[in-house]
Amino acid sequence: MRTTIVGLGLIGGSMAIDLRIKGIANHLIGVDDNNAHAQQAVDLGIVDEVCTLNEAVKNTDLIILAIPVSAMSKMIAQLLDKIESHITIIDTGSTKASICKTVQGHKNRQQFVAAHPIAGTENSGPSAAFSGLFRNKTMIICERQLSSSHALEVANTIFKALESKTIFMEPVDHDKHVAYVSHLSHVSSFLLGQTVMDIEKDEKNIFDLAGSGFASTVRLAKSSPDMWAPIFEQNTEYLSQALLEYIMHLQKFHYYLVKKDSKAIHRIMTEANEIRRVLSGIELKDEKNKVVETLIEE
Amino acid sequence: MRTTIVGLGLIGGSMAIDLRIKGIANHLIGVDDNNAHAQQAVDLGIVDEVCTLNEAVKNTDLIILAIPVSAMSKMIAQLLDKIESHITIIDTGSTKASICKTVQGHKNRQQFVAAHPIAGTENSGPSAAFSGLFRNKTMIICERQLSSSHALEVANTIFKALESKTIFMEPVDHDKHVAYVSHLSHVSSFLLGQTVMDIEKDEKNIFDLAGSGFASTVRLAKSSPDMWAPIFEQNTEYLSQALLEYIMHLQKFHYYLVKKDSKAIHRIMTEANEIRRVLSGIELKDEKNKVVETLIEE
Repeated sequence: MRTTIVGLGLIGGSMAIDLRIKGIANHLIGVDDNNAHAQQAVDLGIVDEVCTLNEAVKNTDLIILAIPVSAMSKMIAQLLDKIESHITIIDTGSTKASICKTVQGHKNRQQFVAAHPIAGTENSGPSAAFSGLFRNKTMIICERQLSSSHALEVANTIFKALESKTIFMEPVDHDKHVAYVSHLSHVSSFLLGQTVMDIEKDEKNIFDLAGSGFASTVRLAKSSPDMWAPIFEQNTEYLSQALLEYIMHLQKFHYYLVKKDSKAIHRIMTEANEIRRVLSGIELKDEKNKVVETLIEE
Repeated sequence: MRTTIVGLGLIGGSMAIDLRIKGIANHLIGVDDNNAHAQQAVDLGIVDEVCTLNEAVKNTDLIILAIPVSAMSKMIAQLLDKIESHITIIDTGSTKASICKTVQGHKNRQQFVAAHPIAGTENSGPSAAFSGLFRNKTMIICERQLSSSHALEVANTIFKALESKTIFMEPVDHDKHVAYVSHLSHVSSFLLGQTVMDIEKDEKNIFDLAGSGFASTVRLAKSSPDMWAPIFEQNTEYLSQALLEYIMHLQKFHYYLVKKDSKAIHRIMTEANEIRRVLSGIELKDEKNKVVETLIEE
């Protein structure tokens, strides 16, 4: 399959690597408005060639979009306006309601599959891409009923090759849930990093005193602002709810702390310990769950 | 050296394992008021025998305390009242001001070394103990000037064997800095876990939608409430400051979010990205820094 990857960063690059390894993409075209990234993707062998999007669409069967969500809706609509009917577009945006709303009603909507891989690291750019990023990870498809059988078949082939597990959600449900289990973690890490750097002006103290617990909690603070600012902007409503709820819990904890109510503090932690069971599930999923569901209802 | 470990959990157990491997402890006595843990420590070969603290002190050269900080001060004072003059006591408490204050002025204060290893995991109990926990980690000593040369020599031997790097701090400075780089991370994780579980009543959604980023940020929420409630209680003042500052940063972020000020959001994240440099230092320290400083001034 002639495959075009738009956005040659961690997500796009990692998809390209595994689609080539699995023999799904026999010719890989890269598109990136960052010339240095485009060249790096060629040098690393991630894509066979780079060109403009206009050139790419003339010679492709599949377009995968892995660009910041702020640019996604417009690009999908423009592509749907002009692409041939055999071409499928799959996006990888971390928000789905706004994107799905923009293209809803487009005469070629059925050529588009709205997808979101629950996969990533705190690193970005072509050099961060690696084989196996999507293995055993969840791939969310929204508005499946609006994609054609052909487009879903293509997506199914891709996600099977990436060894992802596919689930289906409505765009609004998607955005609400990821606000809590993904976007809030990022905000929490970014601000923890800022708080600690703010007080610990002398970096040596952070370096000497911080252990692996701090490093783990603040890891996501390394993430790309170019990628995350648009995500937060598109998911303001649900992220705001999640953030207010988090702040409310922190304030309640602070109240018990200054009140020296150790029993309440202990109870809150004991309840939070329940996350161990959920995380065991996630770890188990990462290690063992290699089931890939079909995208098309039997 | 005949060594007594009081508290056979992650910290005490891991010390016992490496002190035996390195040939420092030729006889290991365990003390734990949890009988199941005591038996488990014998079964796992972590200690040679278990007995009461009163029995242990008759037959030991060194007592290492790895119990919750709520019990630490009283136990150190009681031990200093009765132990022979050749015995050294080292504690491993995560707060230092309260402990140091309690024993300050005790006629045998010089037999005690106030220490805090910046090491740990989210797991607890003897089965969580492992060799290498303290390798390349920072060991903080407080009020070095109040310990005798002999006690510091013993501590130096122990920490060298554990391959830790020792630094010195005043108790109040210690408590303030760890509030920011350790205790706040724990609070942040506990409450993130609680917030997400609160909203995602349907656990399957967390399981399917949460990625490695969430798992990393919330990892510390698995930590033991029995260990952490007393730490928070003893460090209320500085933890409260850290928490208020964190909440203030979160609220400011929330304000920019609902105001749709993406530039401000982007700027905050870019500043937080600076943590990458600090974390590289921490990772470098974990991997390469094997220097062990001497505890005694030349």
